[in-house]
Amino acid sequence: MPTILFAAPALWSEYRDPLPAALAEAGLSDARLVTEADPAEVDYIIYAPASPLQDFTPYSRAKAVLNLWAGVERIVGNPTLTQPLCRMVDPGLTEGMVEWVVGHTLRHHLGMDRHIVNPGHVWDPTCPPLARERPVTILGMGALGSACAAALRALNFPVTGWSRTAKPGSLHGEDGLRQALSRAAILVTLLPKTPETENLLNADRLALLPRGAVILNPGRGALIDDEALLAALESGQVGQATLDVFRVEPLPPDHPYWSHPKVTVTPHIAADTRAVTAARVIAENIRRGEAGEPFLHLVDRGRGY
Amino acid sequence: MPTILFAAPALWSEYRDPLPAALAEAGLSDARLVTEADPAEVDYIIYAPASPLQDFTPYSRAKAVLNLWAGVERIVGNPTLTQPLCRMVDPGLTEGMVEWVVGHTLRHHLGMDRHIVNPGHVWDPTCPPLARERPVTILGMGALGSACAAALRALNFPVTGWSRTAKPGSLHGEDGLRQALSRAAILVTLLPKTPETENLLNADRLALLPRGAVILNPGRGALIDDEALLAALESGQVGQATLDVFRVEPLPPDHPYWSHPKVTVTPHIAADTRAVTAARVIAENIRRGEAGEPFLHLVDRGRGY
Repeated sequence: MPTILFAAPALWSEYRDPLPAALAEAGLSDARLVTEADPAEVDYIIYAPASPLQDFTPYSRAKAVLNLWAGVERIVGNPTLTQPLCRMVDPGLTEGMVEWVVGHTLRHHLGMDRHIVNPGHVWDPTCPPLARERPVTILGMGALGSACAAALRALNFPVTGWSRTAKPGSLHGEDGLRQALSRAAILVTLLPKTPETENLLNADRLALLPRGAVILNPGRGALIDDEALLAALESGQVGQATLDVFRVEPLPPDHPYWSHPKVTVTPHIAADTRAVTAARVIAENIRRGEAGEPFLHLVDRGRGY
Repeated sequence: MPTILFAAPALWSEYRDPLPAALAEAGLSDARLVTEADPAEVDYIIYAPASPLQDFTPYSRAKAVLNLWAGVERIVGNPTLTQPLCRMVDPGLTEGMVEWVVGHTLRHHLGMDRHIVNPGHVWDPTCPPLARERPVTILGMGALGSACAAALRALNFPVTGWSRTAKPGSLHGEDGLRQALSRAAILVTLLPKTPETENLLNADRLALLPRGAVILNPGRGALIDDEALLAALESGQVGQATLDVFRVEPLPPDHPYWSHPKVTVTPHIAADTRAVTAARVIAENIRRGEAGEPFLHLVDRGRGY
């Protein structure tokens, strides 16, 4: 009978029903799911970055910390965290990401904005090219990037993937990055935030894109050097940007992205963890921990994700 | 050595290179492709609705009239046309249609418009539901409708198809239409224009939709009773409409659709025939005619398409 501490109070109302249901489905109906506990008794910690729990030292018995978010950059550097840490890879989150990426790729590909906002009532029947003529590059070919690549390829977009580590079918390394950027009519950034990926899209890298390329960032705000992007939009080097994530969220009201005519701000909605599907992932990892099987989505501390 | 009359002068500049290439590919490099000919010598007529050729009587030797457009409503009723008539089913046209339909479905599904036009800089991180929770209905399950259904299903949208004739996996008949409309969060109209489909979406049928449903019409303008749609938008019964085709094109500058806040006009770009791929379809049909094989995409005069 494992004791499971739900240490993300702000999310309890979302998870209080789905979690017991998922635990029961996983054959763990005898688990003790609590929102407060004596640290010495806790077997699993369900966690979110904003959690008040910051000192993991007293949780000496805990077999794993199970994050409710895909991003772990706000917890992986915590020196008191010695327990195994698992990221959330939620099928609902992946689906939502694919929908956002495919939707905004098609929006820019089809040039929808000039029809959505058309005060002059201009009828210009020039057809856009076909998707097979519009190369898309995805930086980051993990679970989310790969799912987006598959969905875009099914619509005939020629997709180039780039990944920080060598992966079959993807480019990698600095040379690979140069190639990947140089062919991107539309660039999608889906890398995790690590010291190596911070400001990955700086002025030099933006200059490698074909002139007028479109940038979609549903990954992490820090991947982009904001000053460099604004300058590239100003010069026409980057044609448009649709950004879902920012260094500070909500995006401050006076941030230049808000009123820039070539920037669309979406309010961190590309990938939301969905409680019903995420609860099943948590329950499966607890089942694995109890059965002595390896955890899913274990974070590699060396790489930081 | 068949004589092929290209009877769509406005399109000659687009087809003058792709057609000979496609004929050569099909083993017909000896064919005589001309833009003017003695009618008695013509074996095949390549045609577009706006063609000056309107009297087919003198073309007594012609084995087929090969239309460059998918729609044949402006030619099928021509009483002088006794030759077999073939529609265009262009893979490039199908791809373009799938891109438009999937793109605008995702646009409405994700609620993009409120991010593209957001003068108040509102940051509202409410996530849209997943595609699996957003039912789409497609009226018309021919080559285009089926391709759109497959692409939307690949993105997890639950798709209901309705077809005027019984087809496996689709609803049909008046009862089927009622069912199909009643479950459509997003409705896509892809029927051909025939006397039976004109004003198919009238006030009674629009009333069957769930309140606030979105309509996408990349099919034919006449499928929709415009007055009824405007009234349904006014009452909130229909939430938004994105229309690519109209009874009169270009859409007249004073048409209420232009300035209606719930209507997006796209300028008949959802499906454009692409010369390179369409030329291959024409060449294949001429090859078939010469080899005595049945033509592809032969129009059924009784049904009108």
